[in-house]
Amino acid sequence: MSLLIVGTVAFDQIETPFGKTERIVGGSAPYIALAAAQFIDEINLVSVIGSDFPDDFIQMMEQRGIRNEGLQVIENGKSFFWSGRYHHDMNTRDTLVTDLNVLDGFDPVIPDSYQSSQYVMLGNLTPDVQMKVIQRLRSRPKLVVMDTMNYWMKPPFREGLDEVMAKVDVVAINDSEARLYTEEYSLVRAARKILDKGPQYVVLKKGENGALLFHEDQVFFAPALPLEEVFDPTGAGDTFAGGFLGYLAKTENLSFDNLKRAVIYGSAMASFCVEKFGTDRLVEVTREEVENRVSDFIDLVQFDIDLVEE
Amino acid sequence: MSLLIVGTVAFDQIETPFGKTERIVGGSAPYIALAAAQFIDEINLVSVIGSDFPDDFIQMMEQRGIRNEGLQVIENGKSFFWSGRYHHDMNTRDTLVTDLNVLDGFDPVIPDSYQSSQYVMLGNLTPDVQMKVIQRLRSRPKLVVMDTMNYWMKPPFREGLDEVMAKVDVVAINDSEARLYTEEYSLVRAARKILDKGPQYVVLKKGENGALLFHEDQVFFAPALPLEEVFDPTGAGDTFAGGFLGYLAKTENLSFDNLKRAVIYGSAMASFCVEKFGTDRLVEVTREEVENRVSDFIDLVQFDIDLVEE
Repeated sequence: MSLLIVGTVAFDQIETPFGKTERIVGGSAPYIALAAAQFIDEINLVSVIGSDFPDDFIQMMEQRGIRNEGLQVIENGKSFFWSGRYHHDMNTRDTLVTDLNVLDGFDPVIPDSYQSSQYVMLGNLTPDVQMKVIQRLRSRPKLVVMDTMNYWMKPPFREGLDEVMAKVDVVAINDSEARLYTEEYSLVRAARKILDKGPQYVVLKKGENGALLFHEDQVFFAPALPLEEVFDPTGAGDTFAGGFLGYLAKTENLSFDNLKRAVIYGSAMASFCVEKFGTDRLVEVTREEVENRVSDFIDLVQFDIDLVEE
Repeated sequence: MSLLIVGTVAFDQIETPFGKTERIVGGSAPYIALAAAQFIDEINLVSVIGSDFPDDFIQMMEQRGIRNEGLQVIENGKSFFWSGRYHHDMNTRDTLVTDLNVLDGFDPVIPDSYQSSQYVMLGNLTPDVQMKVIQRLRSRPKLVVMDTMNYWMKPPFREGLDEVMAKVDVVAINDSEARLYTEEYSLVRAARKILDKGPQYVVLKKGENGALLFHEDQVFFAPALPLEEVFDPTGAGDTFAGGFLGYLAKTENLSFDNLKRAVIYGSAMASFCVEKFGTDRLVEVTREEVENRVSDFIDLVQFDIDLVEE
């Protein structure tokens, strides 16, 4: 089953306590797409790049089933650029540079060949662009997942964000952003407020502290794998989303039990992402490694208790 | 099977975004003992109080099997007093007042009737007091668990702390303190360094983000229950330890699988603790509520995945 991904394709320059990169490929879409490509082989990418973007990366993605008909290339344009520096704890970072470049004014065009996509990921972009994608899909997909960020939670974007939330099936955002958006510190209350906006599911991503899945009055928690070394957290949330949606598109089962499995697969993919800079680890990871890591997750949380009946 | 608890019995004055208490009963030992009393009915308390401490609280504990022969009462002395204010996130707090009072110079005497205790909890106290307890036990207990805090990780206490760690079976401390103690940000590395000091098990308590249990090359993770409201986090870590040890003393099984169950029971007890100020919720919680909450934990983390063999 095919997956439509709308997100940024960009250059990142990253500094962590372990080292510093040159300009490397980043943005949300490569992480989402490469993670999803572990599960499915028809991924429809919608994004925009400048003519400075490396063609070999596009070709590498294409070989993995990541189609680029919806990837706009702006002649003489420069690709979106982000630069950041992580603190010692690797959980917080300072943004050093954000150059929108070709992303400014991006109009997401959905090619005809993408119209059959039944699974859709709206990566973090302006609510306006996310809404255009929803409106330009001729038939309602089976599942639409969205991400967003703090910047769109304030005027003048807030209203548009509320409207997008009402149209999607799953909101997958960071815990800190859920708190900001709902003004609730309790994640249980924050999730309930977001569910009240319309989506059937809320995934709260807590970084090294795992992820929570909420649906009606049910809640599921998946930890992040305790890692000896987190090398670069950039893209971990997007990789989670890609693994989550890739697994759902492959299994075509939207029960709560299967969404729980999708959260585990998403967490497994994210645990690879942070092991190297940028998308380096995602590009090389094998299906066997993914299954082994899911097995590690099972070991990590498995216990058996016979409850006492009194 | 009996449990020996050494810890503080004190007055606390607590301020949270939800309210402020007068002087209420606090310290580590009441939380540990009341949580353990859900599982066993022979708990031997070693601590020190002033003559200002309310007798009815001692009697309430005694009715639950918490024996006070080792509870020293200093005539005309004042009980240890701590006052703190929680920030809006309920995860961080400022200490406003610490009056050691009778705790200053505390010499832990172990009554003969306590000598058969096979399970021992060394609550957070000076390493010197913790070591005296170990030395004054005539036979080696089956399991000794210790807690500690940042203050003892610096000179001139650090060396004594290292010596205590080498003598115990389980070190159960906060993640931030494990990082401070080992100078490792990765919790996997921090746990390994602590295991290298001698204990068989390390439990890293992460507050609202759950707890990790390490043993040799195994690791187990238990989340904290996502709660709608955290009213007062004071004592949650001690309550966890009390539930953990109470469950082990009851079941008398020190396998890794049973320690995992003990972590779940400890987490369940801690989830009650935070629902009211001080020990109020622990005093009233029923065994049926505990079992129901453990059932909630099972629902929270349960998933089934058939791993693909490829």
